[in-house]
Amino acid sequence: MKLLDLAKNLNLQHLGEDVEVHRVAPLEQATTGDLSFIVDGKWLQHKSQASAFIVHTKLAPLIPPGQSCLISDHPPLDAARAGVLLGMTPFDLEPGIHPQALVHADARLGDRVRVGPGAHIARGVVVGDDCVIHAGAVLHTGTTLGARCIVQSNTVIGADGFGYEFVQGRHVKIPHFGGVTIGDDVEIGACTTIDRARFGNTTIGDGSKIDNLVQIAHNCHIGKGCVIVGQVGISGSCHIKDYAILAGQVGVVPHVTIGEGARIAASTGVAEDVPAGATWSGWWGQNHRDNKIQIVMMRKLPELLKKLKHLIDSEGKNSP
Amino acid sequence: MKLLDLAKNLNLQHLGEDVEVHRVAPLEQATTGDLSFIVDGKWLQHKSQASAFIVHTKLAPLIPPGQSCLISDHPPLDAARAGVLLGMTPFDLEPGIHPQALVHADARLGDRVRVGPGAHIARGVVVGDDCVIHAGAVLHTGTTLGARCIVQSNTVIGADGFGYEFVQGRHVKIPHFGGVTIGDDVEIGACTTIDRARFGNTTIGDGSKIDNLVQIAHNCHIGKGCVIVGQVGISGSCHIKDYAILAGQVGVVPHVTIGEGARIAASTGVAEDVPAGATWSGWWGQNHRDNKIQIVMMRKLPELLKKLKHLIDSEGKNSP
Amino acid sequence: MKLLDLAKNLNLQHLGEDVEVHRVAPLEQATTGDLSFIVDGKWLQHKSQASAFIVHTKLAPLIPPGQSCLISDHPPLDAARAGVLLGMTPFDLEPGIHPQALVHADARLGDRVRVGPGAHIARGVVVGDDCVIHAGAVLHTGTTLGARCIVQSNTVIGADGFGYEFVQGRHVKIPHFGGVTIGDDVEIGACTTIDRARFGNTTIGDGSKIDNLVQIAHNCHIGKGCVIVGQVGISGSCHIKDYAILAGQVGVVPHVTIGEGARIAASTGVAEDVPAGATWSGWWGQNHRDNKIQIVMMRKLPELLKKLKHLIDSEGKNSP
Repeated sequence: MKLLDLAKNLNLQHLGEDVEVHRVAPLEQATTGDLSFIVDGKWLQHKSQASAFIVHTKLAPLIPPGQSCLISDHPPLDAARAGVLLGMTPFDLEPGIHPQALVHADARLGDRVRVGPGAHIARGVVVGDDCVIHAGAVLHTGTTLGARCIVQSNTVIGADGFGYEFVQGRHVKIPHFGGVTIGDDVEIGACTTIDRARFGNTTIGDGSKIDNLVQIAHNCHIGKGCVIVGQVGISGSCHIKDYAILAGQVGVVPHVTIGEGARIAASTGVAEDVPAGATWSGWWGQNHRDNKIQIVMMRKLPELLKKLKHLIDSEGKNSP
Repeated sequence: MKLLDLAKNLNLQHLGEDVEVHRVAPLEQATTGDLSFIVDGKWLQHKSQASAFIVHTKLAPLIPPGQSCLISDHPPLDAARAGVLLGMTPFDLEPGIHPQALVHADARLGDRVRVGPGAHIARGVVVGDDCVIHAGAVLHTGTTLGARCIVQSNTVIGADGFGYEFVQGRHVKIPHFGGVTIGDDVEIGACTTIDRARFGNTTIGDGSKIDNLVQIAHNCHIGKGCVIVGQVGISGSCHIKDYAILAGQVGVVPHVTIGEGARIAASTGVAEDVPAGATWSGWWGQNHRDNKIQIVMMRKLPELLKKLKHLIDSEGKNSP
Repeated sequence: MKLLDLAKNLNLQHLGEDVEVHRVAPLEQATTGDLSFIVDGKWLQHKSQASAFIVHTKLAPLIPPGQSCLISDHPPLDAARAGVLLGMTPFDLEPGIHPQALVHADARLGDRVRVGPGAHIARGVVVGDDCVIHAGAVLHTGTTLGARCIVQSNTVIGADGFGYEFVQGRHVKIPHFGGVTIGDDVEIGACTTIDRARFGNTTIGDGSKIDNLVQIAHNCHIGKGCVIVGQVGISGSCHIKDYAILAGQVGVVPHVTIGEGARIAASTGVAEDVPAGATWSGWWGQNHRDNKIQIVMMRKLPELLKKLKHLIDSEGKNSP
């Protein structure tokens, strides 16, 4: 397909020569005839073999003259659209319920739902229209999914929460009667676990995206449009408000509220409420700016203390 | 059901008006006709719509006069018992071996064992009476479970330990001949992995509770009544003694002993033996009290160093 | 079997009396008639009941006179070999494709491949000779495995990467057209997730070993002979060069390069490129030596600041 035709189809501005492209490829794997994409200034230096690039609008002034490009506000998305136009297909489950899926007769599945082999949808589970449940995922009784949700392989939704009462020297299991209620357009990664509530429901709002190997404990309430990256662990009864972002491996202690639009840096431990809009980091999480200053200071500590000692010594010599 | 009838059945003290309750619900989701429960003083301020509450004994003096309550030493447990009396049932596997479970003919299952769809119980595995093995869980050869154990969905018990010997430039796999021996009343969360020993057995003692996404490596020995919270990782050949508590995301390096009743705070890295009864925390784990003082001091460091410099300067001016 | 016969078969030096041994067992579980093995000096103090030991060459001078031993450069490996000679067998899948495996008709499996019950190998997947795919593992379309790979139970290879573009207030999913390409002799632990690339392939080089519950995001490139321990999380588009070692729970932010042979300590957060051969540690990862000095200094900080203040005070008194 000609680059100019792609530009028309994708409604993007075109620069340079009109070359032929056959598929989309990442910068370092692309060869002649490939279209690649550039989001970041430093990637401009990459000596890619690609014939053309989809480049972010802000980088347009830096493009060398003559280079074949499409200019886009969202290069990764337009690269994906170009991929489809070039005949590439994302791998996906084939339509329908796989014959080796384990779907209970009393589960309620919407229209155009896809279920992979070995996935188990238990008695009473409700799955909205156009959901995709991948191989080996388990949806326990009490789980409700809205429309257009994606559950990746081997994820478990609705297992018992981790709750015990210590009575006379042993941990007595607290039964869990609740469920998990998930909104529309939620995606949940592979090998992730979302536990059912004791009573009522663990809830996840519309449009939230959850990565692989994430733990969301019983009675958590995740808002709309949240982004929860791989290996995050959220303890019981936390509130994560709309559009909060938790980077990889963040841990949150029980009963904490993370405010709307807050951003938590990777590997941060959250041990208290986070205000809306705040950016936090640190092993013992705090305001990111303070944390960074302290880390820089700690790295200078050996030198600082040496200087201070020297200052005191020289003061001592000058003083009498 | 009348609150007074519940009080009699649960053998609890009753306060306030005798109202009708229909089900148990969490504070924020409860409406008229619901019974909720309160463990923590700050929850007393919660404006719940519930008609009645099960309140912890220590909070009884704070209950507003007239409020319908039951007084309990273990509110979550009694709430669960109330739920059963009100006709609620915890979701559980139906009795018996699911027709789509993958149980080897030479596995030995005790009485009243439940096995979910897609769960695999391999050749020679022994499962005690009243165990529940949820969907997609895998019990490899060499695994033995005591009575009344619960294994949540997609957990893997008895995979090979991660052991290699670096010989002439490559990592040579060390075969694992051992197994995993688990006591009575052990619960293991979803997507958790417990590896088999090289020789002998990885062991988990009676009554220990293990959460989701936990890694327990080969040849570990976990004592009785331990609590191991979500995403904890325990390296090979560690000893975790009876009643130790490891909070979420704790990591333990190989060959470490954590003493009886020790408590390790969330996200702590344990790089050496922990004494019995100790409380530890920190990225590089140490006594929790020391760690807290150092963190507070580090947060004051920018200000402290400024003050010190000022002190030195003013000393300098005064001295001659 | 006599220890002397084992020595001959394993081509190892023999010390002490020629005793009869029946099986291999770990130090603390061994009884009379067992062979155990010793790698570490402190294990020499262990009061094991074993009849004989395989001892590391460097510890040979410390062996008490008369003790029955075999001397080895690789005790764990030779213990495993001894196990086989004594008739022990590592647990493994039975040969062939399990009748309850879920293998797509259009997957291409090499010779002598073993596939466990409930494992799903999707359309178009290529699996090399002598691979072992354990129960419940999922290999999505786009996955290619070299020869002699082992995939432990419930691991997911080739799920969609976690990629969204924020457009007009919502996270729009970026489709993933790429795959996962894995070399020869790679082992992947249980409940691990390796995501497919957006375009092109996520790649893992020959001989790399990956533990349980590891997350490897889309478009990562892992070199040859790497060791990636349990619960490590590697974000999108990272390069991990040959023979790098990432200890347990390490986290790596997106677009980072970890140089050849670098070693990252447990629980380290890697937020920038790591030079080849470096050893790094810390919550905010840095050179391990610097990190250790700073941690020691931080632990002394309360005392140091007290001393400094005292020094200033006494200077003040002496000065006039």
